[in-house]
Amino acid sequence: MDEHTWIERYIAPMVTSEGADALRDDVALLTALGPTIATMDTLVEGVHFLPTDPMSSVGQKLVRVNVSDIHAKAAEPLEALLSIAWPGNRTEQAFAQFMSGVQMDLDTFGVSLIGGDLVHHDGPLTLTLTLTGRCLGKAPVRRTGGRVGDTLYINGEIGWGGIGLKAAREGGDPHALEHYQVPRISPATAAHTVADLASASMDVSDGLLIDALRLATASGCGAAIDLERVPLASPTTELAEILAQCTAGDDYRILLSAQQNKVIPGFTRVGTLTESPGLDLRYDGQRVNPPSTLGFEH
Amino acid sequence: MDEHTWIERYIAPMVTSEGADALRDDVALLTALGPTIATMDTLVEGVHFLPTDPMSSVGQKLVRVNVSDIHAKAAEPLEALLSIAWPGNRTEQAFAQFMSGVQMDLDTFGVSLIGGDLVHHDGPLTLTLTLTGRCLGKAPVRRTGGRVGDTLYINGEIGWGGIGLKAAREGGDPHALEHYQVPRISPATAAHTVADLASASMDVSDGLLIDALRLATASGCGAAIDLERVPLASPTTELAEILAQCTAGDDYRILLSAQQNKVIPGFTRVGTLTESPGLDLRYDGQRVNPPSTLGFEH
Repeated sequence: MDEHTWIERYIAPMVTSEGADALRDDVALLTALGPTIATMDTLVEGVHFLPTDPMSSVGQKLVRVNVSDIHAKAAEPLEALLSIAWPGNRTEQAFAQFMSGVQMDLDTFGVSLIGGDLVHHDGPLTLTLTLTGRCLGKAPVRRTGGRVGDTLYINGEIGWGGIGLKAAREGGDPHALEHYQVPRISPATAAHTVADLASASMDVSDGLLIDALRLATASGCGAAIDLERVPLASPTTELAEILAQCTAGDDYRILLSAQQNKVIPGFTRVGTLTESPGLDLRYDGQRVNPPSTLGFEH
Repeated sequence: MDEHTWIERYIAPMVTSEGADALRDDVALLTALGPTIATMDTLVEGVHFLPTDPMSSVGQKLVRVNVSDIHAKAAEPLEALLSIAWPGNRTEQAFAQFMSGVQMDLDTFGVSLIGGDLVHHDGPLTLTLTLTGRCLGKAPVRRTGGRVGDTLYINGEIGWGGIGLKAAREGGDPHALEHYQVPRISPATAAHTVADLASASMDVSDGLLIDALRLATASGCGAAIDLERVPLASPTTELAEILAQCTAGDDYRILLSAQQNKVIPGFTRVGTLTESPGLDLRYDGQRVNPPSTLGFEH
């Protein structure tokens, strides 16, 4: 593998932003029209995706987990730097497929690739994306802005990540598998909802329960969740099954708190921020003991 | 290893920038006072450093290879995002040492850590830093601005990276070893020189000959190098030895072109940009055939 050839063949053609200078240089000039945020997420083979996952879906997932963070903070994704540590035993064809997945989702979410690094090594495929975002408001919406009495909302369904991982490992529902490989992240319109209405916000990447506790704690509150209200990937009345879906990671939905208690299109009310710290789980009004593992800690 | 504990114990205390929100959030607000650039470099164990290198020096090297790119573009390093894929068989003590090396050099170069990612895996230690920089002028100095007749200058000495790698592999001069483990990069004052005088500029990370050819080619020129003028880590009149030092990587000095042909403090004239493309090597006026390998392609 010759890194320069691969960069010219697969990566440089994707780069059109003026500030990237066609990857002929060592740095990229960032576009910064107003407040700009950055996030960085790493995916490692065997940890965040399976060695057998299609390479194009791995490329899409890498973009999506980062875009999800930007949307959840009330911002539009803008520019990306991509680092690839590529195992010597994977083919150039696999690399082309990976890059086509990256390209597809950079296009989908309007992101310009402006730089990065490509390294050949003998370890697991390791991918890092740094993504900038342009704030829709004057600053990102933080985890910290929630207040006691705020309503907690979630968009989309919770549990696809866990159900999809199981399908990938054991075989099963191809629809669930697809959700695992290419997570359905919150759309750009959700970023505007966050900007307009949220007191605090984050993406649910590690499981609803652990992330709700994190948002609440960052805001100096606790979180009360009405489990029967949570929109589930696989609807059920079995409590263990509900808790399993609420503690699976890889969902990439937005959890936000808002001072109002009104209908927000695309979002579902699932609870409130409370004065007493910690997690207060209820099912049809009955208290439920939190499970020992609240989410995927990685 | 519990990533959250390690982040709180070793990484969060390093984070003081307001925009990073004490790492309590998923994104960082970038500081952007004027034109801002970004670079991203990845170091992999066994490729860019040896498994036996002291962890603190690996941390320093990670910061330095990125700062070098920023200085060479006439900018001040500003904010960093750090991704770490940490092998399960390395200890927490080693992690603490790595982070202390990172901290030391972030402080040395005035960089704020604002975010990143930490992942536990079973592969080689893989480290990615994204570094932003504030341009001293209106834009970064590119590789592309050189013109036929411009003088080529280099600062510091060439060859320490290669000599140091040999010392690390085979035992030898501890001074050279130290240069390999903690490269002596161009100081911040050199960035001002680039801003004031350079038509084109880049850091020499892969070897003087290959990088001079890259700068010249990006500028639509060729490069003539007077080998007897190149300041070497290990001065010699043996041509093979000179070429070896001029094709070793890991030097992180600045190569710039300037329209003038005057003395630039801290820099040495080593050649000119020419009309005919390619590399024209001379030693005391005699033509020298370029070696088959011009540098370290990685």
